[in-house]
Amino acid sequence: MNSILNKYRRQRKITESLCDHLEIEDYVVQACPDVSPIKWHLGHTSWFFDTFILRPFSPSYRPLNSQYSLLFNSYYKTFGPHWEQRQRGHLSRPTVNEIFQYRSWVDNQMVELLSSGTPRESFEAIKELVELGINHEQQHQELILMDIKYNFWVNPLRPHYAEQLNNKNAGSKNENHIIPSQFLTILGGMRSVGTKDKQHFHFDNETPKHELYLTPFNIQNRLVTNIEYLEFINCGGYEDFKYWHTDAWDMIQSTKLNCPLYWENREGDWYQFTLYGMKKLAMNEPVSHISYYEAHAYAHWAGKRLPTENEWEVAAKEFGLYPSKTDHVLDRHQYHPREYTPRSTSNGMVDTFGNLWEWTASAYLPYPGYKRRQNALGEYNSKFMDGQYVLKGGSFATSIDHIRSTYRNFYYPDKQWAFTGLRLAEDIDE
Amino acid sequence: MNSILNKYRRQRKITESLCDHLEIEDYVVQACPDVSPIKWHLGHTSWFFDTFILRPFSPSYRPLNSQYSLLFNSYYKTFGPHWEQRQRGHLSRPTVNEIFQYRSWVDNQMVELLSSGTPRESFEAIKELVELGINHEQQHQELILMDIKYNFWVNPLRPHYAEQLNNKNAGSKNENHIIPSQFLTILGGMRSVGTKDKQHFHFDNETPKHELYLTPFNIQNRLVTNIEYLEFINCGGYEDFKYWHTDAWDMIQSTKLNCPLYWENREGDWYQFTLYGMKKLAMNEPVSHISYYEAHAYAHWAGKRLPTENEWEVAAKEFGLYPSKTDHVLDRHQYHPREYTPRSTSNGMVDTFGNLWEWTASAYLPYPGYKRRQNALGEYNSKFMDGQYVLKGGSFATSIDHIRSTYRNFYYPDKQWAFTGLRLAEDIDE
Amino acid sequence: MNSILNKYRRQRKITESLCDHLEIEDYVVQACPDVSPIKWHLGHTSWFFDTFILRPFSPSYRPLNSQYSLLFNSYYKTFGPHWEQRQRGHLSRPTVNEIFQYRSWVDNQMVELLSSGTPRESFEAIKELVELGINHEQQHQELILMDIKYNFWVNPLRPHYAEQLNNKNAGSKNENHIIPSQFLTILGGMRSVGTKDKQHFHFDNETPKHELYLTPFNIQNRLVTNIEYLEFINCGGYEDFKYWHTDAWDMIQSTKLNCPLYWENREGDWYQFTLYGMKKLAMNEPVSHISYYEAHAYAHWAGKRLPTENEWEVAAKEFGLYPSKTDHVLDRHQYHPREYTPRSTSNGMVDTFGNLWEWTASAYLPYPGYKRRQNALGEYNSKFMDGQYVLKGGSFATSIDHIRSTYRNFYYPDKQWAFTGLRLAEDIDE
Amino acid sequence: MNSILNKYRRQRKITESLCDHLEIEDYVVQACPDVSPIKWHLGHTSWFFDTFILRPFSPSYRPLNSQYSLLFNSYYKTFGPHWEQRQRGHLSRPTVNEIFQYRSWVDNQMVELLSSGTPRESFEAIKELVELGINHEQQHQELILMDIKYNFWVNPLRPHYAEQLNNKNAGSKNENHIIPSQFLTILGGMRSVGTKDKQHFHFDNETPKHELYLTPFNIQNRLVTNIEYLEFINCGGYEDFKYWHTDAWDMIQSTKLNCPLYWENREGDWYQFTLYGMKKLAMNEPVSHISYYEAHAYAHWAGKRLPTENEWEVAAKEFGLYPSKTDHVLDRHQYHPREYTPRSTSNGMVDTFGNLWEWTASAYLPYPGYKRRQNALGEYNSKFMDGQYVLKGGSFATSIDHIRSTYRNFYYPDKQWAFTGLRLAEDIDE
Repeated sequence: MNSILNKYRRQRKITESLCDHLEIEDYVVQACPDVSPIKWHLGHTSWFFDTFILRPFSPSYRPLNSQYSLLFNSYYKTFGPHWEQRQRGHLSRPTVNEIFQYRSWVDNQMVELLSSGTPRESFEAIKELVELGINHEQQHQELILMDIKYNFWVNPLRPHYAEQLNNKNAGSKNENHIIPSQFLTILGGMRSVGTKDKQHFHFDNETPKHELYLTPFNIQNRLVTNIEYLEFINCGGYEDFKYWHTDAWDMIQSTKLNCPLYWENREGDWYQFTLYGMKKLAMNEPVSHISYYEAHAYAHWAGKRLPTENEWEVAAKEFGLYPSKTDHVLDRHQYHPREYTPRSTSNGMVDTFGNLWEWTASAYLPYPGYKRRQNALGEYNSKFMDGQYVLKGGSFATSIDHIRSTYRNFYYPDKQWAFTGLRLAEDIDE
Repeated sequence: MNSILNKYRRQRKITESLCDHLEIEDYVVQACPDVSPIKWHLGHTSWFFDTFILRPFSPSYRPLNSQYSLLFNSYYKTFGPHWEQRQRGHLSRPTVNEIFQYRSWVDNQMVELLSSGTPRESFEAIKELVELGINHEQQHQELILMDIKYNFWVNPLRPHYAEQLNNKNAGSKNENHIIPSQFLTILGGMRSVGTKDKQHFHFDNETPKHELYLTPFNIQNRLVTNIEYLEFINCGGYEDFKYWHTDAWDMIQSTKLNCPLYWENREGDWYQFTLYGMKKLAMNEPVSHISYYEAHAYAHWAGKRLPTENEWEVAAKEFGLYPSKTDHVLDRHQYHPREYTPRSTSNGMVDTFGNLWEWTASAYLPYPGYKRRQNALGEYNSKFMDGQYVLKGGSFATSIDHIRSTYRNFYYPDKQWAFTGLRLAEDIDE
Repeated sequence: MNSILNKYRRQRKITESLCDHLEIEDYVVQACPDVSPIKWHLGHTSWFFDTFILRPFSPSYRPLNSQYSLLFNSYYKTFGPHWEQRQRGHLSRPTVNEIFQYRSWVDNQMVELLSSGTPRESFEAIKELVELGINHEQQHQELILMDIKYNFWVNPLRPHYAEQLNNKNAGSKNENHIIPSQFLTILGGMRSVGTKDKQHFHFDNETPKHELYLTPFNIQNRLVTNIEYLEFINCGGYEDFKYWHTDAWDMIQSTKLNCPLYWENREGDWYQFTLYGMKKLAMNEPVSHISYYEAHAYAHWAGKRLPTENEWEVAAKEFGLYPSKTDHVLDRHQYHPREYTPRSTSNGMVDTFGNLWEWTASAYLPYPGYKRRQNALGEYNSKFMDGQYVLKGGSFATSIDHIRSTYRNFYYPDKQWAFTGLRLAEDIDE
Repeated sequence: MNSILNKYRRQRKITESLCDHLEIEDYVVQACPDVSPIKWHLGHTSWFFDTFILRPFSPSYRPLNSQYSLLFNSYYKTFGPHWEQRQRGHLSRPTVNEIFQYRSWVDNQMVELLSSGTPRESFEAIKELVELGINHEQQHQELILMDIKYNFWVNPLRPHYAEQLNNKNAGSKNENHIIPSQFLTILGGMRSVGTKDKQHFHFDNETPKHELYLTPFNIQNRLVTNIEYLEFINCGGYEDFKYWHTDAWDMIQSTKLNCPLYWENREGDWYQFTLYGMKKLAMNEPVSHISYYEAHAYAHWAGKRLPTENEWEVAAKEFGLYPSKTDHVLDRHQYHPREYTPRSTSNGMVDTFGNLWEWTASAYLPYPGYKRRQNALGEYNSKFMDGQYVLKGGSFATSIDHIRSTYRNFYYPDKQWAFTGLRLAEDIDE
């Protein structure tokens, strides 16, 4: 259990490190129903270990506060009523300090359980659940950055989350793209997607590994950039119904949406809110914070389409470039998607992993033969398999442990606040 | 052009015949935003020919009223602003009489165009558009019955649309199911779905015909019946979150939904509103007017799942039973799904076609290689390829011309007012 | 009882005559929640006699349809559930024809009861209730015209309700006002308002007659005209928060309201929808179809204020000019407010009665010593004594029987669809 | 200026003292749109002095942060756009610490201005504005307690704001009321209400002092108690439409309201949330946190009515008992309405002032002859004179400087979160 214990400690620490420079007030607010207060993330990830591991497996378990189950349960109806998501920002208590105490409380008992106290017969079950809890915590690490960014953006003072170490590339000139857009051809035929890996953790929605027949197609060698997306805007893309799904069009009519989230036009110049504050829009950066609706509309306007999740996964296995395993957001101090520069690698499928999540054309549905977990963890993934779209690849804020071609992220098609981008695909006409 | 002219005349007549017994007032109301006033259907189907054929192709075309384009355009933004769907029931004018005059006006010009006036060079284009217009009109024939039923149901007087010729089967005893539920096995492997038929009309969303690899599965020999669905209700299916998608659960919490549309419990006995008025629930009838959410929840509760659209299509080609080609709702005077009786056929995939639309597990998305039409007709199907689910098979109210295995119907997952039912599927575990 | 029977017959006839030129479809629609379908008014006014007189007093009473009580009850919760107002337009049945049958059914039984069948001991009670029912019917006569006008306005075809017999005055030149605006001084002191008249009908909200002390004030000799109101618009009245109550400002921000209801600007020229169809705005006509919010904002902009209901009533008793008793909307064929012309009377308080309802500054609250009726009729007026404002005087569409200085009409402050106008008042500074 | 400077300092200090025991997090949240974050109150009251005094009158004025005008303006549209009230809780910055710095910044400049720098010619104008600013600050002192209470109530942890020094009276027995309910008779005739006091501060809505004629009436000697209100609940008061205004009834149907705010029924026993935490309902305490709708319904059920604001003011001048001038919420450590005990004074109009605000039957409208201020301060009161009701007397949390018979407080009729109660009145029938 030592390695899992170390992994547990390391990830719990990372979560807290992400909050190092926050003010107390920054932990409390929730600027829209989609985001959660940072203190809630800190409590909820602890509740996960508390509920799924300590309560069932630790004989000496004592809850710290009987109300925390109500307050920090996200959506597991198996455990009874939970506080409504949209009201998470209405609670001043428990205080940030009390929530850190809750983390310690849980951590102490987890350490005890993992160091010595595990009964042999439940060893495997506990290990699997700790793995799940760690992966869950890693998902919330990315959410913490997403949510801080949104909360800061809404505030007219536009606070910074971090300081940029160097800004050589900021506000780059509108020079020609460093990496020309090209299309890589993927031959059709029988392929497999999904995983049956027993050695490494994966989520249930990545299973079972299954065969499928793929029609040949082309996929773009890199992500669409800000300068390219700007052309879509300047050509009236947001004013022409014909690029949009009907629900998307209704949405942009009622919200007056006319650019990606975090973009701001100041007297003709485009700026972008980042975790470093407001910056001039970097033209050779991949476009980010777009919804599925926008990704689809852009692709349609460009005469292309989005890849399906199957196409993406097959292409990534063939051409995808993995980031180095030691590469973590906190180590890199990189809180923004990387720009394409003359130094960027330009072979294969650039930025497949770890720059921005890529919208696919695929509805988030179960794989053929998918088995839902029978207990409360059945609520983790399967009840969301309706109305959402799959994203692949991972962003700069994604834990390196989640960087794999089979990982399936998912959001509703109108959401912009995730670290999303897009890569085009096209049919090969015979 | 003679055959197309005859077909045109026949379908235009059928649409009107469906309204034969309506009162003037019945044409006007719109009891919820999903349904449309019957008089709007009569106008809109005429506007379709007016707009897509007469205006571009008939040199002598004169519009009857310049406002009709605004009022009878459904959602084609290519043609400018259109009257909002949810306000269609706010208009007393044009009167029913004036709309019948509009139909005649269009019909006269269509007859003239089709009998003589077609320039040779546009012959094929016109023929294709007339085919499309006729198929469009046939879709609205089914909508007329759906919408009348809903409007009558909302009214506490519960008017009848039709009189039942015989009611031998009504309120059938709860005897054991006449056709036992069984599962038919479909072998896996390479299959094709979709169509490339050049001889017969099909919608663009059915193309291209394409290959896919199918895992073996089982599919139910008939539809789920009322008595079976009642067991789901009686076992608390609507009160247990674990059968439902998260959006579905939120919806049933807020709407208090607890049974299919048109069901009413009177002191313990279940009744069902039909186009013949209120009837005791017929237990051996396939359950109808359920949403995708309910179909999915039932399947989940039953330990099964819904078939995908591909599975359904492949199974239907193998086991599906077609209704007779002469069989039309107006000829049959059958305005309700057929019950299973001792006389029902019991081989193959019973009721594959023409009893109730069957929800599939598939999101309504474009087929691989799908090409969207470039003109206004691109709005017909493709802009709806988001957020909806595919239904297959056709109902008792579906035009016989739409009965084919490749037809893709689609509705949002919460909608109940279509003539929908469900058939189960299951994985074959190795 | 003969005179009351004649009055009953005459008013029931007038209601129906107002519908003489309607199409069946015009009776059915409800273009917004505030208005009711015309057929509902016809049914509801009959239900009033049915419920308050025939059921309790007629031994031979038989209801025509047991559901009509549900459908035609407006808001009397004493009688159990009633059909929701905003859904009145969702019902095609009973048909218009059936509702006329219901009227006959009620009329026949009312005639029988009133001609012969009245037991002596209930004579007075019945007489009083018939008077109330007739006054209620007269209120709905005005509502019928209000609601037809709104339903026709919403329709892009803009149907006419009536033909203008002569239009000498239509689209009058922007000549100087025929009647100059002047202010009449009302001396302060002890006055009385309200009524204790036992001879003539009045509503309970007009009682008791009570004493009050009035500070001296000035009141305008005529109503504010379209040309005057247009100046308010042209000076940016709808764009400057400072003339508006906070709720009013929020409302006009969200609705984009920028002119009275029924006004339409066509390339710089103002038009107005009337019961005769669209007309050029007549500049010397009193401004109509404004809300309390607009009346207040105009007065504020003009450096004046609205009169209170007490001020208005006292002034009307002193300076008000009554219309001739024989004057009825159907006799006059006058379906629009009268314009000021060189022939207009110009002494006293012009148009006190019978041109447009005048908004007052007074919230609709009970008079000191007001006693609410104890039975179901307690719901007639008193439960609305919250959140509304009093209007005085009566419009061209108001029954002559309702023309009296003590009558209190009331609407919510944002409503525009009544036949409303405004007259200014001002303080007399010492 | 010394006395005004001392008053300024004292009140600024009181505001901060009210927050002494709060956690940082408690300053940030806004649990519903009606309440504001405590830190916003601290900023806004400073902005008031900043905007209305320092900017126009202090030559050396420098703003601390140019965005604070946007963030801390409540609703003065004269000063341009302001942050929406319902989104005040979405802002983590400025931090609490920064807001205290803002307070100091303003205080320092105010002290400088008031100690020395006032130009003689603006002396009176500044003095009047400082008085207004202090009174404004005092209003927010009460709001701070109202809003903390609401924010804590919403939180399932139910934090305490203060500790009760002794609780001899808490959870008192249901003994007979210590002070029997009686009615005091006020003779009718000419009276005056409002103020023209030039010596002491008053708000513009209290002017002008004016004459009126009052019908004789009776007014209750004390407030309605919890045990009396409970009888209304137990008799089904919340289930019977006939006690309620129509808007009130619609509201309680949709919100399921069935008791005053802060009441909670735990297995048959009633508890009440207080600033000291949850307590058993004290039966002899005046009922608090009721809306106008509830006050009206209770009075109706009791066969009485609410007093008008004029009646209340005249009665208070005749029978009202004033609290001692030194009596302040922070000195008394009394954060809850006082209970009636054997020691309670029982002569005159008990609790006229300083226990709970009393709803009156009067809509909040301008007094006859009221003059609105012409500058931005015109927005202080007059734009709210629509749709609200007047409350009189003051609560335990009201500044002693606001305790006077002419003070007019006002809230919308559905609001419960103010410290409200009710006293009955009745007509004297001749």
